[in-house]
Amino acid sequence: MHNDLLVIDGLQYSNWDREIFQQLHDGGVTMVHATIVYHEQIRETLSRIAQWNRLFEDNADLIMPIKSAADIHLAKQQGKVGIMFGAQNCSLIEDDIGMIEIMRELNLMIMQLTYNNQSLLACGCYEKIDSGVTRFGKQAIAEMNRVGMIIDMSHSGEKSTLEAIEISSRPIVISHANPTSFYPAKRNKSNLVLRQLSQSGGLLGFSLYPFHLKNGPDCTLQDFCQMIANTADLMGIEHIGIGTDLCQNQPVSILDWMRNGRWSKQTDYGEGNKNNAGWPRPLPWFRDSRDFPNLTRGLQEIGFHDTEVAKIMGLNWLRFFENSLSARS
Amino acid sequence: MHNDLLVIDGLQYSNWDREIFQQLHDGGVTMVHATIVYHEQIRETLSRIAQWNRLFEDNADLIMPIKSAADIHLAKQQGKVGIMFGAQNCSLIEDDIGMIEIMRELNLMIMQLTYNNQSLLACGCYEKIDSGVTRFGKQAIAEMNRVGMIIDMSHSGEKSTLEAIEISSRPIVISHANPTSFYPAKRNKSNLVLRQLSQSGGLLGFSLYPFHLKNGPDCTLQDFCQMIANTADLMGIEHIGIGTDLCQNQPVSILDWMRNGRWSKQTDYGEGNKNNAGWPRPLPWFRDSRDFPNLTRGLQEIGFHDTEVAKIMGLNWLRFFENSLSARS
Repeated sequence: MHNDLLVIDGLQYSNWDREIFQQLHDGGVTMVHATIVYHEQIRETLSRIAQWNRLFEDNADLIMPIKSAADIHLAKQQGKVGIMFGAQNCSLIEDDIGMIEIMRELNLMIMQLTYNNQSLLACGCYEKIDSGVTRFGKQAIAEMNRVGMIIDMSHSGEKSTLEAIEISSRPIVISHANPTSFYPAKRNKSNLVLRQLSQSGGLLGFSLYPFHLKNGPDCTLQDFCQMIANTADLMGIEHIGIGTDLCQNQPVSILDWMRNGRWSKQTDYGEGNKNNAGWPRPLPWFRDSRDFPNLTRGLQEIGFHDTEVAKIMGLNWLRFFENSLSARS
Repeated sequence: MHNDLLVIDGLQYSNWDREIFQQLHDGGVTMVHATIVYHEQIRETLSRIAQWNRLFEDNADLIMPIKSAADIHLAKQQGKVGIMFGAQNCSLIEDDIGMIEIMRELNLMIMQLTYNNQSLLACGCYEKIDSGVTRFGKQAIAEMNRVGMIIDMSHSGEKSTLEAIEISSRPIVISHANPTSFYPAKRNKSNLVLRQLSQSGGLLGFSLYPFHLKNGPDCTLQDFCQMIANTADLMGIEHIGIGTDLCQNQPVSILDWMRNGRWSKQTDYGEGNKNNAGWPRPLPWFRDSRDFPNLTRGLQEIGFHDTEVAKIMGLNWLRFFENSLSARS
C-alpha cells in the first residue's frame, strides 16, 4: 500500500545532503516540511535560502521547492521529494512585520511564533509564566493570515497556543508534538489544546523524536500507533498527520544551537540533561526516512482502514496546505 | 493614438506616492521600471521591498507588481500601472552570489553592475581607468543569465559595458542614457557601444534627464525626437525604447545619496557642479508622467509611422522582457 500513498512529513531538521534526499525518496515521501532556521536573523536566513537554492540546482532530479500547494501534486507526479521551507522561531523577521511578506515571497510557508523561550510574538513552553500572544504577535498573526504563512505553535506555551488558535482567522498547526496524555513532556500538548486545535480546523503532526515518546527510544511502534488511534478519537481523523522531527546526521553543535542559540552563556540542555546531553538514540523502527513504510504498516495493524491511513500519512496535510497557502486580500 | 499604446518607461526613480501613480496612469503608462535601491545593502533592500509591498496593498486599485512578462499584459488589460523592481547598483547583493537568485525571487528584475564608481562587479563611467568586468562580475553575469535577471550598464564605463555585452549569454540593456554623438555627457554612450548593444539583441532606453540632453533643460522635443530617429538608423528600430530617468518630487538629500552613497566624505556633485548642485530644471514638454503623450506626438511629427512609434513607446521593451525574465536551467 505504502507506494500508492502521498506521504507528507510535517517536520524534519536533517543535515540535508543527497543521501538524505535519496532516503526520503526511497521512503516514499512526497513532501517534507524542512526547518531552514531556528534563531537565524534576516541576513542569516537569506544565506540558508541561498544554500537551499544550491541544493535545488545540484539535486534537481531528486528534489524540488514547494512554492504552492499545486507543487505538492507536481512532486508526486514527477516522483520527486518536495521541500517546503519553515522556521522554528520568529528570529527571521527580527522586529519588522514587513519581513513576513518578504519571507513568504521566498517560500517560507510555516513559522513558529516561539521556540521554547519568550519571543517577540508569544511565549515558549519552557518559560515559567506564559502571558500569551504579545502586541506584535497579534499584528504578526493577522499578517501571516493575510499572506498565507502558516502559524505553528509546536514549541509554544499553553496560553499562547490557545490564544493563537483564537486570534488567527485561519487554522493553525502543531507540526511536531504528541499528546501529554501519552507522555508528559513539556513539549507535548494537553487535550484542551488538541481539542481547540481540531475544532478550529487545525492539524497535529505526531512526533517521532524520542524525547516526546513514552519509554523514549524504546517506545514501540504499536504504542505509537495506539496513541494515534486515541488522538483520532479525540481530534477526529481529519486533523492528524505525521511530523517526525527527524534530525538526521546532525552534529551535537546543532543541538546546542537549537537549545542555546545566542541567548545563554550557561548550557541549556533542553529536553535532555547534563548526563544525557546528546541526541537521543533512534527508534529501531524509525531510523531514517526509509522507515516510513513501517508507519503505514503500524497504522494498518492497529486497525485503521486504508482511507484513514492515507489521510494520516499525507492527505490531511495536503488538504491543510491547499487551504492555507493562498494570500487573502 | 497615445491611449491605444502599451507604454513602458524603462526607468524612473521618483518619490513614489499615490499622486505619482495617478500621474503615471493619466499619462497612459502601462509599466515603469522603478529603481528601488542605489547603494542599499541586503537588509536595507528588504526594507525598500517591504515599503513597496505596503504601497501595493494601499494602492491596489492603481498599481500592481510585475512578477513576469505576462503581468505587463495583465496591467494593460486591467488599466493598472505595473511596477518592475530594479537596482542601480549591485550593493544589494553585497559580496554574495547567492543573493542574485534571492533578489530575483523577490521580483528584482534588473540590476546595474555599477553606479558610476568601481563596484565588485565592474567599473563605472566616472573612474579614470576601466579595467572591465571583474572575476566576481563574470560569475554574477552567468548567474543573472541563469535566473533571468537583466544586466543594465547605464552607469558603467565603456570597456566594462563592451565586456558585459560580450560575456552575457542573454541580451543586456542600457535602460537610461543617450548617444554621446547627441550630447557628450560621461553617462552617454559611444556609437561603438550602441552598435554592439543592438547587434547582441540589447536595448537602449532614451533618457529625459536634462544632464543627458543637448542644451540641458532647454532641449526641444524636436531635437530629442531627431536624436531617436538618428539612433534608430544606427541601432535599428527594434532596439530602442524610453527610459525617462524621471526623479519626481525627490528632495536634494536623495541626489546626495545617489551621488555620494556612503563612499565619500567630500561632496561629489556627479553630473552637476558646486554652483549647480541641485536637481536640474525640468523639461517644459516632459514635466512628469502626464506628458508621455507629448513623446508620442513628437515621434509622429518627426516622421515615425504608427507601428514604429508603438515599438519605441513600449513594444520593444515588452518583447525584451518576454525574452529575458524566464529562468534557464
